[in-house]
Amino acid sequence: MATASNAPIGIFDSGIGGLTVFAAVRRCLPHESILYLGDTARVPYGTKSAETVVRYSRECAGFLVERGVKALVVACNTASAYALPDLEKRFNVPVLGVVGPGCEAALAASERRSIGVIGTAGTIASNAYGNALKALDPGVRVVSRACPLFVPLVEEGWIDNEVAHAAARRYLKGLKEEGIDTLILGCTHYPLLAGIIKMELGDAVRLVDSAETTAHVLQGMLEGRNLAAQAAGPSSSHIYVTDLPARFESIAQRFLKGEVPSITRVDL
Amino acid sequence: MATASNAPIGIFDSGIGGLTVFAAVRRCLPHESILYLGDTARVPYGTKSAETVVRYSRECAGFLVERGVKALVVACNTASAYALPDLEKRFNVPVLGVVGPGCEAALAASERRSIGVIGTAGTIASNAYGNALKALDPGVRVVSRACPLFVPLVEEGWIDNEVAHAAARRYLKGLKEEGIDTLILGCTHYPLLAGIIKMELGDAVRLVDSAETTAHVLQGMLEGRNLAAQAAGPSSSHIYVTDLPARFESIAQRFLKGEVPSITRVDL
Repeated sequence: MATASNAPIGIFDSGIGGLTVFAAVRRCLPHESILYLGDTARVPYGTKSAETVVRYSRECAGFLVERGVKALVVACNTASAYALPDLEKRFNVPVLGVVGPGCEAALAASERRSIGVIGTAGTIASNAYGNALKALDPGVRVVSRACPLFVPLVEEGWIDNEVAHAAARRYLKGLKEEGIDTLILGCTHYPLLAGIIKMELGDAVRLVDSAETTAHVLQGMLEGRNLAAQAAGPSSSHIYVTDLPARFESIAQRFLKGEVPSITRVDL
Repeated sequence: MATASNAPIGIFDSGIGGLTVFAAVRRCLPHESILYLGDTARVPYGTKSAETVVRYSRECAGFLVERGVKALVVACNTASAYALPDLEKRFNVPVLGVVGPGCEAALAASERRSIGVIGTAGTIASNAYGNALKALDPGVRVVSRACPLFVPLVEEGWIDNEVAHAAARRYLKGLKEEGIDTLILGCTHYPLLAGIIKMELGDAVRLVDSAETTAHVLQGMLEGRNLAAQAAGPSSSHIYVTDLPARFESIAQRFLKGEVPSITRVDL
């Protein structure tokens, strides 16, 4: 059975950070319907073991595949880093993570082939970005740094105060001294800290956010497989979460900067 | 069937913070065996909804009750705030949370009956401390403040740098101005930040950590029910976790400041 081109795209994340990918896909592919799943009952993934992240990712992907998605986007960097090969083997739909597109964008942006990567403890420990960058360009220099406090800072809404600045200064000091010219924001929350990261590193360092590139790679993938939605068709999107805490909708608003689709709590 | 007095005590927490309670119980009751469960695969609880926290707490308590514990200590403040009545109804062993003992200790320490409470978003939203303090002393004044960044700061090991100081200054400013004379550290991670909290609030404000008081209340509860271990008996303790991330043992070491019992990963 061929997957219908009017089937929705599935996007999952450990929580709400993946809504930056949701927003980019909605901008780039306005005729597509999207089912988004945020595993907010078990967020974050970035501090957990590879084994646990793979197990959770399977459950998230399975939930979306059961709902008939034509393609899967793993919006969580930690899940992309640990679980992509497992999901590709296990599910019969194209699977796209954010690590590959982020690396392509960084290599296109970097002139000196000296690239920094920041992410959660899990993403950095996996070395997924380093391996993918070296596979694309063996001569590239990669400097990685885990920034565990950046996610809670964004969720607290502290993206431009003295606490955020002090944390950014501490995490990024070493990277600045390494002379990178491009920095991959290897976590979906980090684009919200782009302002203070730029202040710390200076304008000479380009920031790469994988959300936009992921949307473009997804577009090419769908077109290449004749899975793109017909322009005339109506699109409809939905957000599923495994927990619905008090401030969820206001935080979602911050990520989506616009219309928030209807939200349903589900058990995996 | 009467519960044997040589059965272990069960302690659970959303993660590793409850090891401060484990350590206090071990000091206060050296002849008792302890089974500790940290739900590290789903940590934290403090940002999640009441419904989800109650469900997780039931699963944690059930795991320990199945292993024959003679009493349950809910070391997590958020779980104590939301789930205690449910656990008391559901399980046939005495259940002790950390909120009640923390309130008793605070009322004993406060001279002006003006008490501050800091905790996770969930603990503060529940108003469990406020309600319990008012039930014990209707004339007490209570000022509460959620400090969501304190847990990630402790887990990052940033307990005395400029980021921790800036966060403490921002969270505690209002409390200082309210003229409290006692502050309840309503989260098991917070005692590790006692140094900077004291610097911010000054020596006139007494800090109350519920771990010690909880151990003493537990002692009274066991003696009152003839459940205290016999002094001659050997004790043995064990730690269970639902995830075993890379740095778990080093973080556990920081909380226990001494011998770390053997650790097993389990699924709930």
